[in-house]
Amino acid sequence: MEIRDWRLEIGQSPISNLQSQQGIEGMSSLTPLLHPRSVAVIGATERADASSSFVMRNLMQHGYAGQIYPVHPRAETVFGLTAVPTITHLPQPPDLAVICIAAPYVAAALEEAGRKGTKAAIVLSSGFAEKDAEGRARQQELVEIAARYDMAVCGPNCLGLIAHQANTVLYSSRFPMGVPKGDVALISQSGAIAIALSSTGCIGFSHIISSGNSAVTDIPDYLRYLAADPLTRVVMLVLENISRPEALAAAMQEMHKADKRVVALYVGRTERGAAATSAHTGALAGSFAAVQAFFRRHGIVSVESMDELLQTTALLSVLPQRPQKRGLAIIGVSGGGVAHVSDVASAVGLTIPPLQPETIAQLKAILPPFITPQNPLDTTGLPFSDGDVYRQALDFLANDPAIGLITAVQDAPPGLDEAGTREYLPIAQGIVDFAHTAPVPVVVVSNLADGHHPLFSEPLRQAGVPMLRGTAVALKAINHLFTPMPMAARTAQTDLAMDAFWQKRFANGAPFTEREAKQLLAAYGIRTTREELATSAAEAVQLAAAIGFPVVMKIESPDITHKSDVGGVLLGVGDETAVEQAYDQLMANVSKAMPQAKLHGVVVQEMVVAGVEAFVGVSRYAPFGFGVVVGPGGVLVELVGETAVDLLPLNPESAQTLVESTRLNKLLSGFRGSPPADRSALVDTILKLAQIVQLYGDYLDTIELNPITVLPEGQGICVLDAVMLPAKSSITQEVQLLRRS
Amino acid sequence: MEIRDWRLEIGQSPISNLQSQQGIEGMSSLTPLLHPRSVAVIGATERADASSSFVMRNLMQHGYAGQIYPVHPRAETVFGLTAVPTITHLPQPPDLAVICIAAPYVAAALEEAGRKGTKAAIVLSSGFAEKDAEGRARQQELVEIAARYDMAVCGPNCLGLIAHQANTVLYSSRFPMGVPKGDVALISQSGAIAIALSSTGCIGFSHIISSGNSAVTDIPDYLRYLAADPLTRVVMLVLENISRPEALAAAMQEMHKADKRVVALYVGRTERGAAATSAHTGALAGSFAAVQAFFRRHGIVSVESMDELLQTTALLSVLPQRPQKRGLAIIGVSGGGVAHVSDVASAVGLTIPPLQPETIAQLKAILPPFITPQNPLDTTGLPFSDGDVYRQALDFLANDPAIGLITAVQDAPPGLDEAGTREYLPIAQGIVDFAHTAPVPVVVVSNLADGHHPLFSEPLRQAGVPMLRGTAVALKAINHLFTPMPMAARTAQTDLAMDAFWQKRFANGAPFTEREAKQLLAAYGIRTTREELATSAAEAVQLAAAIGFPVVMKIESPDITHKSDVGGVLLGVGDETAVEQAYDQLMANVSKAMPQAKLHGVVVQEMVVAGVEAFVGVSRYAPFGFGVVVGPGGVLVELVGETAVDLLPLNPESAQTLVESTRLNKLLSGFRGSPPADRSALVDTILKLAQIVQLYGDYLDTIELNPITVLPEGQGICVLDAVMLPAKSSITQEVQLLRRS
Repeated sequence: MEIRDWRLEIGQSPISNLQSQQGIEGMSSLTPLLHPRSVAVIGATERADASSSFVMRNLMQHGYAGQIYPVHPRAETVFGLTAVPTITHLPQPPDLAVICIAAPYVAAALEEAGRKGTKAAIVLSSGFAEKDAEGRARQQELVEIAARYDMAVCGPNCLGLIAHQANTVLYSSRFPMGVPKGDVALISQSGAIAIALSSTGCIGFSHIISSGNSAVTDIPDYLRYLAADPLTRVVMLVLENISRPEALAAAMQEMHKADKRVVALYVGRTERGAAATSAHTGALAGSFAAVQAFFRRHGIVSVESMDELLQTTALLSVLPQRPQKRGLAIIGVSGGGVAHVSDVASAVGLTIPPLQPETIAQLKAILPPFITPQNPLDTTGLPFSDGDVYRQALDFLANDPAIGLITAVQDAPPGLDEAGTREYLPIAQGIVDFAHTAPVPVVVVSNLADGHHPLFSEPLRQAGVPMLRGTAVALKAINHLFTPMPMAARTAQTDLAMDAFWQKRFANGAPFTEREAKQLLAAYGIRTTREELATSAAEAVQLAAAIGFPVVMKIESPDITHKSDVGGVLLGVGDETAVEQAYDQLMANVSKAMPQAKLHGVVVQEMVVAGVEAFVGVSRYAPFGFGVVVGPGGVLVELVGETAVDLLPLNPESAQTLVESTRLNKLLSGFRGSPPADRSALVDTILKLAQIVQLYGDYLDTIELNPITVLPEGQGICVLDAVMLPAKSSITQEVQLLRRS
Repeated sequence: MEIRDWRLEIGQSPISNLQSQQGIEGMSSLTPLLHPRSVAVIGATERADASSSFVMRNLMQHGYAGQIYPVHPRAETVFGLTAVPTITHLPQPPDLAVICIAAPYVAAALEEAGRKGTKAAIVLSSGFAEKDAEGRARQQELVEIAARYDMAVCGPNCLGLIAHQANTVLYSSRFPMGVPKGDVALISQSGAIAIALSSTGCIGFSHIISSGNSAVTDIPDYLRYLAADPLTRVVMLVLENISRPEALAAAMQEMHKADKRVVALYVGRTERGAAATSAHTGALAGSFAAVQAFFRRHGIVSVESMDELLQTTALLSVLPQRPQKRGLAIIGVSGGGVAHVSDVASAVGLTIPPLQPETIAQLKAILPPFITPQNPLDTTGLPFSDGDVYRQALDFLANDPAIGLITAVQDAPPGLDEAGTREYLPIAQGIVDFAHTAPVPVVVVSNLADGHHPLFSEPLRQAGVPMLRGTAVALKAINHLFTPMPMAARTAQTDLAMDAFWQKRFANGAPFTEREAKQLLAAYGIRTTREELATSAAEAVQLAAAIGFPVVMKIESPDITHKSDVGGVLLGVGDETAVEQAYDQLMANVSKAMPQAKLHGVVVQEMVVAGVEAFVGVSRYAPFGFGVVVGPGGVLVELVGETAVDLLPLNPESAQTLVESTRLNKLLSGFRGSPPADRSALVDTILKLAQIVQLYGDYLDTIELNPITVLPEGQGICVLDAVMLPAKSSITQEVQLLRRS
C-alpha cells in the first residue's frame, strides 16, 4: 500500500510526514501507532455496539486511506472487507493492530502481532490495572510483550486515537464528522473528557489521543512525538497522575525547543490533597502544590477547569505572537462592560496600566468631548455608526508604550436576530482593520459563555482574531499567555564532601532529637541556638548562667516530637531559681503526660527574641523527589497558612524566588518601623538545607526548621527549633498516585 | 382602551394584575410605568435609527394591546397611526409618555405630560448626569418636575423597559422575537449588559428594565413593585452603585416576605476599591467589602461575573425547593469527570460528605463489582445501556441522610451527531425518572460552557430539571443556593447616656492623641493600658516605677499619628536609667524628624506582652454609614492582610460572627499549646465601640484599635494602641459613587 493518498486528500502542502518523522530519533517508534499505513482490527465484527465495529466504521467513514484488515476467527468479510482468521495469515505485517477483544485474550493477540512483526497496537479493552489485582497482572504481561517486540502500545482501557489531519480515526467511540482540523493535539487519560473536549468545534485538531492506562506508551512519549510533528503547535493534556516526571520534563524540553505550548488540566487535585503525606511539611502544602511547582518549572500552562483548558488552548493556537509586555488595555462600547472586565482582569492578576498622556490626547481627539479616555476605555456607542473610530482607538492603545495586549469587550449574543447583529458589524470591521497591521495582539471577549453571533464572529475568525467567551474564563486564558517559560536547569551545590560521621549516624536509623538535628544543621554551616543538655537541675543552672538569661528550656526525649503539647517547653526562664524550678517542672510534666517516654534531660537554650520568624521545610513529594516549603513561621504558620513550594534541586535564583513568593517577603522587607531582615541569609540557609538533602536524602523523610528567626540585615539567621524525621521506608510517605479509570 | 387584551393573550390564568397591584401601597405609582394601558411616544418618527422608531416598531411587532399615540409637531401619521402635535391634544391623558427627544427639550415635554395628567414617563434621551454639569442640572430639573406631578420616571439615559408577559416592549434597542417568557425580572443600570443578558434564551423573563441614571424611579422602587408582582419570582440586578441603601434594604424585606430571590452583579468593584477612603481602616478593606457586607446582611446573592449571574438566576428560577442540607452528592459515568467536578466543588466551598455504609451497600449491589462506591460516585459506563441503574443510584444518594442536593455530571456536547447523542438518552431518562419523585433536587452539569445537545436536554427541561454549563460557574451557582437569608434586624445598644464632657470635646474639633482616645474608650468600659504623660525625664522615671517595669514609652503630639515612623516609640524600657535615656532620646528623635510638631511630652505606658493581637476599626463606608473591620492585629495586619467587614448597627450575634469569620478566630482558639483567648471580651469590646460610634459618629471618621491584645479566657482584653480621627467634613472620606453611563 502506498502512502500518497491521505496526504493529497487533506489538501495540505505535501509534507513528507512519515519520511521526515522517521528520521527523527525517538519518533520512529510512534509513527506506526499515530500514522499507520495499514491496520489490522483484531476481533472485527459488524455488531453495532462492538468497539471494533466503531473503529472500522470510523476508519471508513472518515476516509482512512490505508489498508484495513479485519481479523476474525470465522467471518469471511466484515463491512465488505475480506477478513483473515489471525494476523499471521496476512501477507505483510500491518503497521498497527487494534485489539478489541476481552481482557483475558489480549496478551495472546498482542504476542501474535509482535511475532508477526507489527510494531504498534491499540488495546481498547478494559479489565486491566484500573480493575483489580488480576487486571494489574494482565497489564504487566502486556508491558513485557511490548518490550520483547519493541512495540508502541496505546491503552489499555482507552478509546484509541485519531490522527485527524490524516483522516485516521482509530476510535471506539463515535467521532462526529466535521470536527475542525488544526494544530492542536489532545492527550487525555479520561476518555469521557476527551469526547467532550473534541466535540466543541472551537478548536482544530491534529491528533486526539485517549491514553487510558498508558501502560506502555505514556504521555511523555506522545509529547516527544508531537514536539517533532509539523502538524502540531499546541498540546492540551488532561492528566490524572504523573508517573514519570523525569521523562515528562525531558519531553517538555523538546516542546520548548520546538516553541510549542502545553496546557494541562490536572484532575483529582483535591483528592490528591487529601491523600497527601501527613508529615509536618506536607500538611502545610498538599501535593497538588508539588504538581503546580512541577508545571511551573517546566513551563506547562496549568488550568483549573475544562472550559479554561479549551479557551486557553484556542487562544494559544490562534494568537500569532506572545505579548512582549504584560500591560493589558481594555476597550468596549459599554461603560458597564469594560468596568466588569476590568474587575475580573484584576482578580485574575492581569495588569491594566494607566495610559500615557499622549495616548489620552489622541483618544480625546476622536471620542465625544464628555469622555475622559482611560484604561479601561469606554468608547461610548460611537463605533456603532463609525467603525473606524474603533480601529483608531485600537491603534492608539496599541502604540502606548505600556500596552502589550488589547482585550476588546464586545457582546453580540447568538440570540440576537440578524438585523440586530448587523448593527455590531462596524465594530467587527474596526477590529479586523486593526488586526491586519496590529503591533500588539487583540483578543475579543464576550461576557457570556454563549459567545458571539456567527455574523459578528465570522469576519474576525477569517482575520485570525482570537475570540473568547465568558469573562472569567476568558481573562484567565489571557493571563496564561504570560506563563513564564521554564527556568534554566538548576545546578546542585556539591561543594561539601560527605561527612562520614553523619552518614553513619543516619545509617543507624534512630530518631533525631531537636538538639541533634541542630548539630547536623550547624555542621553544614546553618546557625542554630546555643544550647546544651542538662541532666540535673544544678547542671541546668550552670548552663543557663553560661548561655545568659533569659533562657528557653525544653525536655529532650527521642520519643517526643511535639514537646509543647506535653508541657515540655518553658520560654523566658529568667534567673537561677527559675531554672531550677523549671527543670523539675518539665521532668514532672512530661513524666505525667508520657510516662513511657525515655527522657534524656532538659536542654537549656539561648533565647533569641528579635527578628522575623520563618518556616523552612523539606519533605518528599512523590513522584517528584524532595520539595522545599517556605513561609511565615512560628505562630504564623497556622494563622497565615500560606506557603510556597518548589522542587529540589534549587539554585540561588530559584531559592530567592521561593522566598519572595510568599507573604513572608513582606515581613522580611521591614514595616511599621522595623528594619529589613537578612533575606539573603535565609536564601543561603535554604540552599544549605538543600545540600543536606542531597547528601542524606535517602535516609530522610522530613526536615522542618520552624521557626527560623531572620535577624536584621547583615546579622544572619538563627534556627530556633528543628524537627528531623528519618525515612521510615521509601514508600511510607509517598502519595498514592493511583490511576483512575 | 380596555385592559383585557394582553392578559388573555399571554395565556395566563386571568390574574387581575392591574387591579390587584393598584391596591398595594407603593405599587400603584409604578403600574402606569410598567403596565401602561396607553403610551404616547413623544418625538415619534419613522426614521429607522431613531429611538422613537424602535419603540413604536417594538410595541407593534411584539403585540402591545394598548393604545399607541405618536406625538410629532408636524407629522400626520407615524407608522400608520394618527399623530398629534403635542400630548395636550390627546382627549385623555395617556398612562405613559416615552420621551425620545434631545436632552434640552426633555424637561418641557415631561412638564407638559405631567400637566396633562400622565403619571409615568420613560426618558430614553442621554445628555444628563452621566455627561457634565449642564446635564446634572437638567437631570435635577426632571426630578423636580416628577415630584411636582407625582410621576414615575424610568431613565434618563436608558433603553427603556419591557413588560414581557404583557408584550409591552418599551425599548429603544432591538428586542428579538422569541425571548422566552418566565418569572425572572432583570434590572440593569447598564444597557449593553441588559441586551446581552436578555438574548441568551436560557432564562424566561417577566420584566426587563434598563434603569439608566435612575434619577426618579430607582432600583428599590422597581424591587418593591416586583416583590408584589405575581409574575416575578427571581430578580437579577446589575448595579454600578447603591445610592439609597435604606430604601434597598426595605425593598429586600418585601422581597424576602414574598419568598423571592435577588441575585446581584456589582460592576466596577475594583475601581471602587481604588477610590476607597484612604483612612487606615478603609485601606485594609476596600469599599466593595462594604457592598458585600450589605448584600450579605440583606440576603442578596452576590455573583462575580455575567455568566455566574445568568446561571445562578436560571437555577433559582427552575429549582422548586431550597436544599434542606448542605451535603452535595456528585454522580457521573466518568471517573475523570466526577473527580474534576469534586475539585471545583471543593474550591468554591461546597461540602461533599462521605456516604453512609448503608448507602454504599445499596450502591454496591447495583454497580460493577470492582467499583467501590463513594462520593463522588463513578457509576462507570453501565448507565449507557441501563438508565435505571442511574435512577437507582440517584435514589440511594438522595436517601443518604447527609445529602441535600445531587449534581449529575454529564457532558453531551451539542457538537455530537444525533446518533452519538442518543447513546446518552438512557442517562437523561434515569434522571427524569428520579426527578418525578425526588426527595432532594438534582442539578445536571456539563463541564463545558457549550452545554448539552438539545436531544439530551429537552426531556430534562420538560421534567423541570435545572441544567448548568461550565464546571466553575455551575458549581458557584449551586453554592449560591446556600446564601443565607438576611439576618434579623439588629438593635442598637442604647444603654449609655450621652456624656456631655465628650460631646463638648468632640465639638471642639481638635485631633485626639492616643492617650485621649484611650480615655474615651475607658470612659465607655473598654480596658486600655495604664499610662500617664510625663513632661520631664524625672517625671517619666517616677511614672514608670509606679506602673512597673518594663514600660513602653511614646511621644505625645497632636500632630503625629504614626509615632513609630518618626522614632517616637520605645518598647520594653527595663529600668530607671533606661527610662531617663529613653525620654531624651524620644524627644530628640521626633524633634529631628518633625521639627514643626508640637510635643506634649512622653507617655509612659504599661507593657502588656501576653495575649493574641487583634485589630478592630470603625470607619465610614459611604453610602452605608459606618462599618467595623476586624482581623488579626499588630504586625499581622499587613502580613495576613485579611479582615472582615460588617456594617453598623451590630448585635451580639453579628459581632460574634464577624470575629469568627477571619483567621483571627484560629488564633483566639489557642493552638500550639497556648490557652484559648477571651473571645467574648473582644466581642463585647466591638459592641462598646459601636456604642461610641452611635453617640459620636457625626464627629468621627475613624477609630482604629490596633493592637488590642486578647488575654486568656476570663482575663478580658487590653487596648494597646488607638487612633481616632475626627470628621474632617461629612464628605471628605466618602467614596465617590458616581454613576457611569
